[in-house]
Amino acid sequence: MKKTAKKFRPHKRQSKPAGLPPGTLIYVGERKVEAIRITYIDYDEQNFDEKQVINIEDCFAFKTTPTVTWINIDGLHNVEIIEKLGRQFELHPLVLEDILHTGQRPKLEDFEKHLFVVLTMLSYNDDIQTVETEQVSIILGSNFVISFQERLGDVFDQIRDRIRNAKGRIRKMGPDYLGYSLIDAVVDNYFAILEKLGERIESLEEELVMEPTEQTLQQINHLKKEMILLRKSVWPLREVISTLQRTESALIKESTGLYLRDVYDHTIQIIDTIESFRDIASGMVDVYLSSLSNKMNSVMKVLTIIATIFIPLTFIAGIYGMNFKYMPELEWRWGYGAALLVMVSVAVTMLIYFRKKKWL
Amino acid sequence: MKKTAKKFRPHKRQSKPAGLPPGTLIYVGERKVEAIRITYIDYDEQNFDEKQVINIEDCFAFKTTPTVTWINIDGLHNVEIIEKLGRQFELHPLVLEDILHTGQRPKLEDFEKHLFVVLTMLSYNDDIQTVETEQVSIILGSNFVISFQERLGDVFDQIRDRIRNAKGRIRKMGPDYLGYSLIDAVVDNYFAILEKLGERIESLEEELVMEPTEQTLQQINHLKKEMILLRKSVWPLREVISTLQRTESALIKESTGLYLRDVYDHTIQIIDTIESFRDIASGMVDVYLSSLSNKMNSVMKVLTIIATIFIPLTFIAGIYGMNFKYMPELEWRWGYGAALLVMVSVAVTMLIYFRKKKWL
Amino acid sequence: MKKTAKKFRPHKRQSKPAGLPPGTLIYVGERKVEAIRITYIDYDEQNFDEKQVINIEDCFAFKTTPTVTWINIDGLHNVEIIEKLGRQFELHPLVLEDILHTGQRPKLEDFEKHLFVVLTMLSYNDDIQTVETEQVSIILGSNFVISFQERLGDVFDQIRDRIRNAKGRIRKMGPDYLGYSLIDAVVDNYFAILEKLGERIESLEEELVMEPTEQTLQQINHLKKEMILLRKSVWPLREVISTLQRTESALIKESTGLYLRDVYDHTIQIIDTIESFRDIASGMVDVYLSSLSNKMNSVMKVLTIIATIFIPLTFIAGIYGMNFKYMPELEWRWGYGAALLVMVSVAVTMLIYFRKKKWL
Amino acid sequence: MKKTAKKFRPHKRQSKPAGLPPGTLIYVGERKVEAIRITYIDYDEQNFDEKQVINIEDCFAFKTTPTVTWINIDGLHNVEIIEKLGRQFELHPLVLEDILHTGQRPKLEDFEKHLFVVLTMLSYNDDIQTVETEQVSIILGSNFVISFQERLGDVFDQIRDRIRNAKGRIRKMGPDYLGYSLIDAVVDNYFAILEKLGERIESLEEELVMEPTEQTLQQINHLKKEMILLRKSVWPLREVISTLQRTESALIKESTGLYLRDVYDHTIQIIDTIESFRDIASGMVDVYLSSLSNKMNSVMKVLTIIATIFIPLTFIAGIYGMNFKYMPELEWRWGYGAALLVMVSVAVTMLIYFRKKKWL
Amino acid sequence: MKKTAKKFRPHKRQSKPAGLPPGTLIYVGERKVEAIRITYIDYDEQNFDEKQVINIEDCFAFKTTPTVTWINIDGLHNVEIIEKLGRQFELHPLVLEDILHTGQRPKLEDFEKHLFVVLTMLSYNDDIQTVETEQVSIILGSNFVISFQERLGDVFDQIRDRIRNAKGRIRKMGPDYLGYSLIDAVVDNYFAILEKLGERIESLEEELVMEPTEQTLQQINHLKKEMILLRKSVWPLREVISTLQRTESALIKESTGLYLRDVYDHTIQIIDTIESFRDIASGMVDVYLSSLSNKMNSVMKVLTIIATIFIPLTFIAGIYGMNFKYMPELEWRWGYGAALLVMVSVAVTMLIYFRKKKWL
Repeated sequence: MKKTAKKFRPHKRQSKPAGLPPGTLIYVGERKVEAIRITYIDYDEQNFDEKQVINIEDCFAFKTTPTVTWINIDGLHNVEIIEKLGRQFELHPLVLEDILHTGQRPKLEDFEKHLFVVLTMLSYNDDIQTVETEQVSIILGSNFVISFQERLGDVFDQIRDRIRNAKGRIRKMGPDYLGYSLIDAVVDNYFAILEKLGERIESLEEELVMEPTEQTLQQINHLKKEMILLRKSVWPLREVISTLQRTESALIKESTGLYLRDVYDHTIQIIDTIESFRDIASGMVDVYLSSLSNKMNSVMKVLTIIATIFIPLTFIAGIYGMNFKYMPELEWRWGYGAALLVMVSVAVTMLIYFRKKKWL
Repeated sequence: MKKTAKKFRPHKRQSKPAGLPPGTLIYVGERKVEAIRITYIDYDEQNFDEKQVINIEDCFAFKTTPTVTWINIDGLHNVEIIEKLGRQFELHPLVLEDILHTGQRPKLEDFEKHLFVVLTMLSYNDDIQTVETEQVSIILGSNFVISFQERLGDVFDQIRDRIRNAKGRIRKMGPDYLGYSLIDAVVDNYFAILEKLGERIESLEEELVMEPTEQTLQQINHLKKEMILLRKSVWPLREVISTLQRTESALIKESTGLYLRDVYDHTIQIIDTIESFRDIASGMVDVYLSSLSNKMNSVMKVLTIIATIFIPLTFIAGIYGMNFKYMPELEWRWGYGAALLVMVSVAVTMLIYFRKKKWL
Repeated sequence: MKKTAKKFRPHKRQSKPAGLPPGTLIYVGERKVEAIRITYIDYDEQNFDEKQVINIEDCFAFKTTPTVTWINIDGLHNVEIIEKLGRQFELHPLVLEDILHTGQRPKLEDFEKHLFVVLTMLSYNDDIQTVETEQVSIILGSNFVISFQERLGDVFDQIRDRIRNAKGRIRKMGPDYLGYSLIDAVVDNYFAILEKLGERIESLEEELVMEPTEQTLQQINHLKKEMILLRKSVWPLREVISTLQRTESALIKESTGLYLRDVYDHTIQIIDTIESFRDIASGMVDVYLSSLSNKMNSVMKVLTIIATIFIPLTFIAGIYGMNFKYMPELEWRWGYGAALLVMVSVAVTMLIYFRKKKWL
Repeated sequence: MKKTAKKFRPHKRQSKPAGLPPGTLIYVGERKVEAIRITYIDYDEQNFDEKQVINIEDCFAFKTTPTVTWINIDGLHNVEIIEKLGRQFELHPLVLEDILHTGQRPKLEDFEKHLFVVLTMLSYNDDIQTVETEQVSIILGSNFVISFQERLGDVFDQIRDRIRNAKGRIRKMGPDYLGYSLIDAVVDNYFAILEKLGERIESLEEELVMEPTEQTLQQINHLKKEMILLRKSVWPLREVISTLQRTESALIKESTGLYLRDVYDHTIQIIDTIESFRDIASGMVDVYLSSLSNKMNSVMKVLTIIATIFIPLTFIAGIYGMNFKYMPELEWRWGYGAALLVMVSVAVTMLIYFRKKKWL
Repeated sequence: MKKTAKKFRPHKRQSKPAGLPPGTLIYVGERKVEAIRITYIDYDEQNFDEKQVINIEDCFAFKTTPTVTWINIDGLHNVEIIEKLGRQFELHPLVLEDILHTGQRPKLEDFEKHLFVVLTMLSYNDDIQTVETEQVSIILGSNFVISFQERLGDVFDQIRDRIRNAKGRIRKMGPDYLGYSLIDAVVDNYFAILEKLGERIESLEEELVMEPTEQTLQQINHLKKEMILLRKSVWPLREVISTLQRTESALIKESTGLYLRDVYDHTIQIIDTIESFRDIASGMVDVYLSSLSNKMNSVMKVLTIIATIFIPLTFIAGIYGMNFKYMPELEWRWGYGAALLVMVSVAVTMLIYFRKKKWL
């Protein structure tokens, strides 16, 4: 889905140096060589127009057209483009700063003329079995939606498809429905992540029963960290959607409220599932630690059985290895046989004892 | 009670592919070969009519009759039926989607003309000692109740019986009382599940005291997972009932409010009990882990006793097994006897020491 | 205090079979052979009348007398009596159901003409060191109080005494003060239970320091379970009293509010103490588990000391037990003595090493 | 500071026997032989009068004087005195009961004519390194403050001093400021306790790093218990002060509100610190348990090294101790030397192996 | 950044002795020899003036000038200066007390004519890898900001720079924007601390995987303590900013509200990250404890393998070291060879067994 991606590092917020004036526009993410891609989709119920443009100025006309326009920008390292766009669409400097300072907490801000929504889009990198994270910033105006992404590749292809082919009701609805659709796609993708995590939990559970190793615990911890990431993304998202639902902004039509309630239910379900996963994961740590104790127990049993059987036997052999002059048994005809017999019976007694203790 | 059932997989939500237009009707559960069963019960205080129909259209007339009608649909894999019903009874597309996308979180939605309630019905599969889960969706209109279930078999037989035989007040009451009865039956069934879990807790507790094995911990974890499932079902249910109680919808008569308060109390009690179970389960993990340590201790004691007694003895034997030319003891008449005597006293001393340490 | 009693089983709610019509009167507790005992105390400031009656009908007259009447019923297995009483005093069917389905969560319901309070009365059975539980249901009317108990024996004897002997202000006050007194007696009794638990905590703490065994942990867990029971009883009780205090029901006079605030403070104090106990108990589990490790350590030290001293000595003895033809030491005059000397110095070195390591 | 004191026993509330009429005046604390001490300080900006009186009646005149009067009573075992005082100053019977039933939860009650505040005064007994507890009850009237303490000795000496010497603004302010000062002194003293606990945490942390013993864990648990006590005292105190601040009672002047906010901030800070301590303490338990494992590891390593080196050597010695007739090596001229050489190389190999494993 | 600094000691609040009159001015921090440094920056859009003064009186004129003045005081040990300033700028005695009693919880107090804000400025001391703490008190008036710091060195240099060079909008805005900038700089610095902690977490995680030692756990605990410190600073700060945002004080202009919302989001993000770190840290403790068990397991395996192989062999050697007269094997020509063969096969069998058990 994505070409390059950013590993989850919970403690890494690309912060501006302390004390920089607020509103300073510096992109804090990794600087990519690849060009920034600007595309727009302009549509109403009858018309549809989709194009990739080179200059951001080509999108400026849409500010005032009556059709719904979705401008999407992949790549944030060209600050100039963002600035121009900001001036044209009258975005607050702090909004531009938040778009560029990726790693923001999901949030919603209401600037009357437009709403500003920050989301965290997650993707699962199968190669390194890791959840990757990307900030999606959405500006929702009265007749346009502008979305900013850090990299090419996203979870919105199905939406593009629905607009192109006029599937569902999307072409009949306004930009608020488009905005909802974007949020919905991001949230639906969380379920895909959850399913991946669920599969890994299942395979780790099997591993725990079959043959736990030191890596197993590390993987459980790795899993936990990804749940933390998910939770950090979805908790504030829940607030965002809840606020959107209750907003009195004229930008959100009442009919969209019902759909938002649906997404809201999904976020709750995701939160529920994450909490369940956390409970399960902590149960798995218990199982792992107890498996270590069990292994130790079985090692110790082997040692104890061997030592307990042979140490007394060796002692008996030792006695008759002594060089005292007067040791009557040594002279007996059947002394050797008798000694062996005693040894065998000691060994058998021990074995019976261990069997009774269920160590064998 | 049920013929086929779905195992609890907390991380499995049969989600639609990310980005599908909302309101797309696709059943996400397992597709059953068995036919869909549609039944209706139509009644008022005097009359009673119960029938299984082939075509959903046979139920359409009840939309406007003054009697109370309960239409029940077992099996959701024929999307067409659901769609027809939805058109006839004017259900919102998102409602139909929620009915088909089973695995929803229990919830209540108020569409003025009808209420939409999603519940999770649980059943205990004794064969595999596992709690199974099924979504029940209920539409409560002004003169009808429609319920959707994933499979044949449910917890509503007693209600059917009461309607048939005019037991209790059900025939005198409206569809809201029927709706309450369905919810009550689902909640009452949770107590049955709790009792099963309680029995398993008791038997696991005995097992823990008698002879804990590696399986014991796995079973405790399995138990915990089922409590998580129960909790995930009952917490949102509590909200649903609480909202129903306080609703201003004309569909819920005041007299039903008292009954809902009763169900509400039951959900609280279930939640209390689950929390107690969780506390007990975490206590059981402590007991299990300590039993491992205790076992290890007893293994180590056996080894230590044997080794500590025989290693010094073997050493003494070793001394008199040396081949030095001048070893006066070897020549003594009672050397051998004296050596044996020393050995016996060393052993006895050790045994006394261990007895004092309470290891024997 | 009580003759027979019910052991705490947190997962045991004697539930009616799922789907039974609400309001069905079936007593779910253990059916006792002993007869039901019905007593009444009728009083005002001047007069006092106390009697045990055979027929419940003998109490019906008190419904309209101006005096305060307390009807107490011990034993619930005769459903007919409860039904008659319910008809006479106009109790809602759900109230009767709640009275009979013992194991209810403490709760308060306001039926305008009367208040319905469910409490959990606890008692400590010294024989089996277990907290036992009994449901007390109280109907508080404008001139009567009816209380239902599962068994003979309760915590109300002091109240009876105060009424008989006109101690305190009880004879001057109305039925709301009597109701308060009953609740107060139940809550005060919780302190007695807490004291018992506190004593057991103290004795377990001593046991932990002196000589912890496997039983110790089981007893800690047993204790924890009883705290769970207490908490399950007192948390909802707190809500009940808090609601009673704020109620606008005419049945509770303002002067009684101050007394209720006092009971409320007591429930808070009980909750505080239970939480403290839980913290202490989890600290005790830590101590227990560490005592296991400590024991293991001391066992291992004994083994290590013995083995580490004697294994090298045995090796030395083994060397001079070899049968090589040319072993000059064997021929030496003081070879044997020298060998013994070496052995002693090895042993002493080891002992010094262990002393330095503080193992001895 | 105090002569005799009461050890913290979290489960010990000197409760009246269940069912006693509320308002019964029985002192539940330890009955002291020492006499009750009654003192009063009467002051306004110009005048100052301080006296210890024998009869409580000597204080009755102050009820109506315009000056501020602080009556302090040390010792509660003479119920009669409390009763007389209660009658004179029109205190509610439940207030008197709360004064005598020490061990109350801190609380505030508003009786229009006066406010009733219960506090827990703590002191640190250095001898037994234990926090001791004493209930202080304060009646705040329009021109008097009455305080009740269980024992001689308190934290109020500085306040007395400030009144005597007219330090600060206390002589210019009303009884509400005096009440605030008493609360402030109690809260400030909590910081002293916290500092003691902090010192013990530090010394325990050092002990943990240097040489943890079984006592260490017991002391950590002891510490935890005292934090529980502190928390139980300060949480409700926070509510008390918060209510005082927001009270509409005419007894608290607006100017005092600012001072109360200051105390409130202190209680929050105390709560914060206790929570930090708890986190630290649970980290210390982890360190302790891991130190046990580490010790075990080092014991096991010693055993393993010794055994692993000498057991093979002993085996080699054992081989050449065999008495077979035909054992060529025994006849060799340098057999003995060769055997010793083999042994040394085995030992050296083992030592290298252990060094590589970092066990040495 | 700082010359001297104070180590985090969570239990150390330099409290005034209990009972001192409130408003007593005593500086409780460490008394420094270095002089107090007083600087002021006075500016409006056109003018700029910055000076270091010796006498605090030199700043008094700014109280009434229309320009914005920022007076900064480094060092609090000269109480007289603070007192003079307080008199001139009409600060409440409790404010002065809070400025001097460093170690306050972050808080906001509204005195109509000015706002009083207490912050905790953190800095990371790389030498001892420890977070250090310093109280910054800010007085925000209608045309001035006064800030008090304990030591030279702060995080405000960038702000000074922006004022000097008229960067950003700071010169155009009022004192409320300056106040916001100070808070923003403190909060931004928290991210720097988080990054340091994050790096240490990463390096500890690597250490845990590679070669955990006893120090590792101590460092994890040390880390946890610093998170506690951060949390203690940032939680109340969040409240402060939230209150500032919602304040109706005329001192905060509406335009600044948006900036405050931005800082507020940052505090939330910091809190989120700290919580994640705590989860990660507790996972690390699990990993550490399990690594101890794993080490023990590997030690025990070595011992068990060696002992289990050689003890039986030694026993066999022991048998043929016995001195019985009639031991036929001893006479056999190939007895010795056969014995060695048996020994080798026993050893090989054992090795195969261990390989099968995956111990080798």
